Amino acid sequence: MLEKTTRMNYLYDFYQSLLTPKQRSYMALYYRDDYSLGEIAENYGVSRQAVYDNLKRTEILLEEYEQKLSLFRKFEERRKLIALIRQSMNEHPDDNDKLNRYLDELEELD
Amino acid sequence: MLEKTTRMNYLYDFYQSLLTPKQRSYMALYYRDDYSLGEIAENYGVSRQAVYDNLKRTEILLEEYEQKLSLFRKFEERRKLIALIRQSMNEHPDDNDKLNRYLDELEELD
Repeated sequence: MLEKTTRMNYLYDFYQSLLTPKQRSYMALYYRDDYSLGEIAENYGVSRQAVYDNLKRTEILLEEYEQKLSLFRKFEERRKLIALIRQSMNEHPDDNDKLNRYLDELEELD
Repeated sequence: MLEKTTRMNYLYDFYQSLLTPKQRSYMALYYRDDYSLGEIAENYGVSRQAVYDNLKRTEILLEEYEQKLSLFRKFEERRKLIALIRQSMNEHPDDNDKLNRYLDELEELD
């Protein structure tokens, strides 16, 4: 569950601009601020089921955006490459070929 | 006009997965393959005006996605930073601080 929360928070970060204000509010309260379904329902004067259904639909939508645009996957791959570049700079400061290959890979991600 | 064509081709590259099949076809034929409105209309058995209207709506949609997600802007900024890193590696191979600052900037773009 923690893993899903982390993933949803990342996907929300990347794609929140494509959501409606209500979808954004429910997602932020539930996943980022750890409110319960009941608390969100009470806050908005709707049923617990309505909040649940809205969140489920938003989760599916976020996964669909990730399938189409891969922003989270590319973010993770870029972080890995940048870490490799920093490591290579420290351990093999004279090996420009290696650094250039990592930079090529970074460019190809776009 | 050439500038607009270049921009539309870039935006299309980044956001085509969010378009409908028809929007994709018209955009690719008009901007990538340089077909005329009349040729596309004849090919699809629709009016020239219908093709024009569809393209205009798609252009607006692509600009809206770019406003929300900035994929093209970030792509350009990453390319600039990667070029600066390559330059810095060649001209100041011992200045790791400079390289690290560029890498920090790359990470902050995500």
